[in-house]
Amino acid sequence: MDSQYPSQSLERAVRELAKLPGVGRKTALRYALFLLRMPEEEVASFSAALEKLKTETRYCRVCHNISDTEVCPVCGDVRRDRSTVCVVESVRDVMAIENTQQYRGLYHVLGGVISPIDGVGPQDLSIAHLVERVKGGEIKEVILALSSTMEGDTTNFYIYRKLEGTGVRVSVIARGISVGDELEYTDEITLGRSLLNRTEFLGI
Amino acid sequence: MDSQYPSQSLERAVRELAKLPGVGRKTALRYALFLLRMPEEEVASFSAALEKLKTETRYCRVCHNISDTEVCPVCGDVRRDRSTVCVVESVRDVMAIENTQQYRGLYHVLGGVISPIDGVGPQDLSIAHLVERVKGGEIKEVILALSSTMEGDTTNFYIYRKLEGTGVRVSVIARGISVGDELEYTDEITLGRSLLNRTEFLGI
Repeated sequence: MDSQYPSQSLERAVRELAKLPGVGRKTALRYALFLLRMPEEEVASFSAALEKLKTETRYCRVCHNISDTEVCPVCGDVRRDRSTVCVVESVRDVMAIENTQQYRGLYHVLGGVISPIDGVGPQDLSIAHLVERVKGGEIKEVILALSSTMEGDTTNFYIYRKLEGTGVRVSVIARGISVGDELEYTDEITLGRSLLNRTEFLGI
Repeated sequence: MDSQYPSQSLERAVRELAKLPGVGRKTALRYALFLLRMPEEEVASFSAALEKLKTETRYCRVCHNISDTEVCPVCGDVRRDRSTVCVVESVRDVMAIENTQQYRGLYHVLGGVISPIDGVGPQDLSIAHLVERVKGGEIKEVILALSSTMEGDTTNFYIYRKLEGTGVRVSVIARGISVGDELEYTDEITLGRSLLNRTEFLGI
C-alpha cells in the first residue's frame, strides 16, 4: 500500500528519488527526510551539483569517456601510448582500469554491449567510430575488455570481424581464476580457460 | 583508494550523492551515471524537486509534522478526534501509523528521543510545546508511541513526569509478540511483557 505523504513536495521528491537504480519508495523517503534535515544552502548545492552534472559534462569526442572538455583528460595526455586502445563497455570500466595503474594507452567506450534481448544492436554502440579510429592508422593494438558474458563475447566477435583486414592486433583481457580465489570453488569453465591460457611461470 | 574521475562535475555530483544515508562513493557513482543517461529535462525536474523539498515544505505549527501549509492535513482535518494526541519520534512514524488506518486522533512529532550519547536532551525536542498543547485543555489522552528502546523509555518517562498534574490520561502503545511471530523465537523480555499486559480474550 502506498504511504500517505503529508506534503506534496515531499511526495514529489520521493517520486523523483525512487527513479534512482535500486532505490524503492522506502529508501527514497529516507533520502528525502535526510535532505529535509540538511541546512538549506547544502540542499541547494546538492541539487545544483546534480543539475550541473547533466549540463556541464559531455562525452569525449575521441573515446566517448565522460569529460568536462571536448577531449577527455586521458585522450589529452601526451604521455600516454596512442598506439593502444582498450575497448570497454562504460565509463565505470575506464575508472576501474585507471585504478589498476597498469595501463598507459587510450580507451574507447562502447556505451554497452550487443544484446538483442534489451534491443541493443551494433548501431547503438560506438563501434563504427572505433573502426574509423583504427583506420586513422595510429593504432597498433585494440584490447577488448568487455564483460565475460554471452553479450560481451558476441560484441568481442563482432568487433573482431569489423577490424579484420585493418592489420591491427586484436587482443582480449585474460580470463582465469581471480587473485586470492581458491581452486576448489572456481567454476569449471573459468578453470578450464585458465588452464588453456596458462602463461610461463616467471618465479614469484 | 579513491577513483580518478574523468570530470569535475561528475566528482562533485558523486561527493554530494555520497552524503545520503547509507550511500558510499560506489553507489553514488552508480546514481550519478544513471542521472547522466537521463534526458536533460528529467534531470532538471529531479534536481528541482529536491530543491523545492527544502524551500517549500515546512513543519506544522501544531504538531511538527511535515506540511506544505502552516497547519498539516491531519491537524487541519475537522473530522479527526482532537482530544487524543499520539506522540511519535519522527514524520516517518506518523506515516506508519496513518497507514494502519486505526487511528483518528492527532499527532505530536518530537523530532527524536532523549539520548545523552548523541547529545540530544529534552530541550532539543518539542516536549515543552507538547506540555503547552496539553495545557490548552482540549486534549484528554496522550498516547506515547516511541521506539521500544532505552532512549524511548527514558523519553516516555520524562514526558509522563512533565504531564503529571495536568489531569490528562497518559497511555503507551502495547509491547508484545508481533503478529505472525512464533513464541519460541521471541526474546524473554518481550514475552514477559506480553504476559503481564495480557488482555481479555474476545474470540477470534
